[in-house]
Amino acid sequence: MTKAPLIALFTDFGLQGPYMGQMRAAIATIAPNMPVIDLFADAPMFNAMASAYLLAAYGPAMPQGSIIVAVVDPGVGSARPAVILQAGGRFYVGPDNGLLAVMAARDGGEAWVIDWVPPNLSNSFHGRDLFAPVAARLAIGQPVEATHVPLAQIEREDWPDDLPQIIYHDHYGNVMTGLRASCLSPGTLLRAGGHEFRPARTFSAVSPGQAFWYENSNGLAEIAVNQGRAADLDGLGLGAPISFVAA
Amino acid sequence: MTKAPLIALFTDFGLQGPYMGQMRAAIATIAPNMPVIDLFADAPMFNAMASAYLLAAYGPAMPQGSIIVAVVDPGVGSARPAVILQAGGRFYVGPDNGLLAVMAARDGGEAWVIDWVPPNLSNSFHGRDLFAPVAARLAIGQPVEATHVPLAQIEREDWPDDLPQIIYHDHYGNVMTGLRASCLSPGTLLRAGGHEFRPARTFSAVSPGQAFWYENSNGLAEIAVNQGRAADLDGLGLGAPISFVAA
Amino acid sequence: MTKAPLIALFTDFGLQGPYMGQMRAAIATIAPNMPVIDLFADAPMFNAMASAYLLAAYGPAMPQGSIIVAVVDPGVGSARPAVILQAGGRFYVGPDNGLLAVMAARDGGEAWVIDWVPPNLSNSFHGRDLFAPVAARLAIGQPVEATHVPLAQIEREDWPDDLPQIIYHDHYGNVMTGLRASCLSPGTLLRAGGHEFRPARTFSAVSPGQAFWYENSNGLAEIAVNQGRAADLDGLGLGAPISFVAA
Repeated sequence: MTKAPLIALFTDFGLQGPYMGQMRAAIATIAPNMPVIDLFADAPMFNAMASAYLLAAYGPAMPQGSIIVAVVDPGVGSARPAVILQAGGRFYVGPDNGLLAVMAARDGGEAWVIDWVPPNLSNSFHGRDLFAPVAARLAIGQPVEATHVPLAQIEREDWPDDLPQIIYHDHYGNVMTGLRASCLSPGTLLRAGGHEFRPARTFSAVSPGQAFWYENSNGLAEIAVNQGRAADLDGLGLGAPISFVAA
Repeated sequence: MTKAPLIALFTDFGLQGPYMGQMRAAIATIAPNMPVIDLFADAPMFNAMASAYLLAAYGPAMPQGSIIVAVVDPGVGSARPAVILQAGGRFYVGPDNGLLAVMAARDGGEAWVIDWVPPNLSNSFHGRDLFAPVAARLAIGQPVEATHVPLAQIEREDWPDDLPQIIYHDHYGNVMTGLRASCLSPGTLLRAGGHEFRPARTFSAVSPGQAFWYENSNGLAEIAVNQGRAADLDGLGLGAPISFVAA
Repeated sequence: MTKAPLIALFTDFGLQGPYMGQMRAAIATIAPNMPVIDLFADAPMFNAMASAYLLAAYGPAMPQGSIIVAVVDPGVGSARPAVILQAGGRFYVGPDNGLLAVMAARDGGEAWVIDWVPPNLSNSFHGRDLFAPVAARLAIGQPVEATHVPLAQIEREDWPDDLPQIIYHDHYGNVMTGLRASCLSPGTLLRAGGHEFRPARTFSAVSPGQAFWYENSNGLAEIAVNQGRAADLDGLGLGAPISFVAA
């Protein structure tokens, strides 16, 4: 195996505090010159399902050969397995709680349960102690003891192809949904929080202050206000349901 | 051209979410071992003018040969050109919306309109798709198709030399103005939000809790409170006007 | 001296704004390919004492040979010395205001007062102008003029071994204390803000919504709520005192 171009971190750890830095230190100990980027440090907190749809939109845009460490893990310290998914030319490492299920359902690939046991494993920070070291080892081609399992084992049969919910608010107040725009017919209206949103190509296609939805730069249907904050509209909180009406 | 020492990112993208990470991934794909730092991820949002004065204070402090990617771009997706400015031994890459105008007016240099077209260009994220790849190519000496233009083309004749406004609040609640301290005579009083601020050398020169202004470590006149938050004083919001009285 | 594996930044500068990026640029100028991580950018603001207990819990977990730059420095610009502590196979660089005192008391080691004077020293940003360059020089084995001093000079005799206070709130709302869990007997109850907290092994050992305390992944006693925010409970603000009752 050749060396990975980078390791991307997808977590709900927050940028504040020591957690992302400790992930980087754990990686640097094993893979000293490996570039590490934050893909998300603010994935939907404690919410593996919403995070899974976000990861499935953003993970496949990482460079070929990348390793993505995905940790949204409210069950840390319990007996849930740790898994590896190889899909679309990338490796994903994370807990077996559905976080990798949407990736697996869309891109197929192969799955393993991790048997490797780190020299030190805390009760509460498997990101640092288990997932980051596994990613670092994969990144430089070191072996990781693991058992090949059927892909279905990490999937969630009862989860939909796309999630008709609000899953993320960004820094600008733009509101991401769990729906891929490519699955909506042209002209579809989105409804959420009692509002109705028409589609537009992008921000500059509508007047300042106007709300609309558009296909964001990673393919998700996103509700936005040109030079304003869609997240401040009533009823657009995380988890709010979305419905849609084909035009 | 020799390799750049680093690429600095100056944006209003926010540290949260995927944007700064996706910028890094785009750069790493072209320039694998290039150091990338966040100079500002929270430049004045949608405000190219205030951002231009901030950039002109902080960009020239980057190491010689650095590439600065500057993206505050409310017009993304419209027809505004993308430009490169070479000034003071550094390259600046960004939209032609005034963001590089203050740099150009102060440091002179040379300007180009970017003709290079990336293989994929989304409607809403030119930072990732255009500006970051151009910076990465410049950083490693790869050619970027561009047309040399007169410097005046990226300047803004109607903008002042210094901006008598509050342009940034930092983490401590310190309040940066768009005025260079070197352009104020010694002893000048600053007025903003109905308050009057006397100059001091630095924080430890005044009592805890006392408000003052000083020349910050990048040369801007900055209003601060020793071990307190000037940003919480009435009338010191972003965009508030500043007046000054020579002593 | 061999090259350091990484430089870790422990500051109260905030992630927002230019400060952490300028630290990185200062390091990159001297030590071009040195990995730099943020350990904390939000250490207790202006509070060298609380920060010292946090640093003593997190610094020793950095890889052997690391350089830790620690800057919580409300007295910047005054005459307080700058110091280096070598302890436990790592170097710590920072102001002599007690920030390194707890490390020194616990791990022993050797101390120096820095005599080296940087070519440019601003009044307000010694992190960038002095501490980062010193760390970079140490990291690559360049000499730094300094005077060896007795360890006692950087210690604080009147500070306790552990600090019975709340010293940090993390992104999840978990509440760190300045007490090492290893210094509390099994079953100890913690009291803070009028609440009483029983110990548990980790989050998944209690019901969602239940408050408890546990030994966090760096050995501190930490108050938490499974899938909730302990920081939102009354009386658990930064600086709140903790008492404990052995079971």
